[in-house]
Amino acid sequence: MKPLVSTPRTKHHRKPVRGSYDRELAYAILDEALVAHVGFAVDGAPFVIPMFYARQGDSLILHGAAASRFLEHGAAGLPLCVTVTLLDALVLARSAFHHSVNYRSVVLMGTATEIVEREAKLAAAAAFVDHAVAGRSREVRAPTDKELGATKMLAMPIDEGSVKMREGGPIDDVEDFDVPCWSGIIPVALTASTPLADPRTHEPVPATLTSYRRR
Amino acid sequence: MKPLVSTPRTKHHRKPVRGSYDRELAYAILDEALVAHVGFAVDGAPFVIPMFYARQGDSLILHGAAASRFLEHGAAGLPLCVTVTLLDALVLARSAFHHSVNYRSVVLMGTATEIVEREAKLAAAAAFVDHAVAGRSREVRAPTDKELGATKMLAMPIDEGSVKMREGGPIDDVEDFDVPCWSGIIPVALTASTPLADPRTHEPVPATLTSYRRR
Repeated sequence: MKPLVSTPRTKHHRKPVRGSYDRELAYAILDEALVAHVGFAVDGAPFVIPMFYARQGDSLILHGAAASRFLEHGAAGLPLCVTVTLLDALVLARSAFHHSVNYRSVVLMGTATEIVEREAKLAAAAAFVDHAVAGRSREVRAPTDKELGATKMLAMPIDEGSVKMREGGPIDDVEDFDVPCWSGIIPVALTASTPLADPRTHEPVPATLTSYRRR
Repeated sequence: MKPLVSTPRTKHHRKPVRGSYDRELAYAILDEALVAHVGFAVDGAPFVIPMFYARQGDSLILHGAAASRFLEHGAAGLPLCVTVTLLDALVLARSAFHHSVNYRSVVLMGTATEIVEREAKLAAAAAFVDHAVAGRSREVRAPTDKELGATKMLAMPIDEGSVKMREGGPIDDVEDFDVPCWSGIIPVALTASTPLADPRTHEPVPATLTSYRRR
């Protein structure tokens, strides 16, 4: 796969060992995570909005109410920065200084265009549902034209960007090895618990939901 | 507690029922979450960086390597937007359109100042460690002056901002109640698994870590 495009603003300046432009790795992170933090600037003032998203091939897609101020700006080509982060562990060293976290993150930069064509909007709607639960778009009622009209959708090409990650245990100073303090990592992950059915549902819980996992 | 300050740029424009300026609620979210997405703009280009953070009273504190470009900008008073999001559930409706997520998020805006005084930096270092594991700052080796010098710390007053959240089940259209598709929510949460000790550690796993929880 073609690597992500490194530019001066996405170049890793520090701890280069943790940086990557591996597109496959970026896609794995994007497909596992559920929430993106979308940044844009209006008159120099930064805004960061949490958004559900999906990946559709080499594009990242966003959506929301047609009246959304942000989506209006985004459709008009306002530069965006979309960051997706997975927290994997707390890294607990013997010294305060060497505490850290294990994580995998993708930062993407670019501009988006609005998805306007009906079939493309239907495909994007399916991609959003399938990003939440793989295959679910085949089970749900598809959007009506009125619903499509009430929804604005943006697609941003996945091109300029980078991956940053940390893995492994704490890196303590040798002189701290005898500090009487437990050292190691606490793995963390977003995990699902038992699905809660809508009181009016007639259907049994599908097997894909009783054992819902992101990886 | 004094509510967060609502301004035109933090005003909730849509679905106001989900918005709040409740400071206590904002603090509960900030204290439970671990990662902030920090946004800033340079020459109109937005950047969103995932960062570990802590809350110290009515301030949100950030830190990193003294050479960090972002922290340099931040210390110089560049406007920041700090967003913290907790994902609570996937909301699976019978129609694609009514799919949603339950979440709690805080958006804070403002400028930061550098923490320079030695005692203040030591207190902030303790706050970072204690945000990861409550009380751990008493067990670890405190930072040396050299380590403090290698770390830049910023404090941003928690003032202008807002909380946004969704809770509850799917809100399906009445005419969709008979669509043969399971409807309900999948609760999700960041959960910890068994701590992994550093191979060189002499200490037993503290009880606070064997049952590590964020809430």
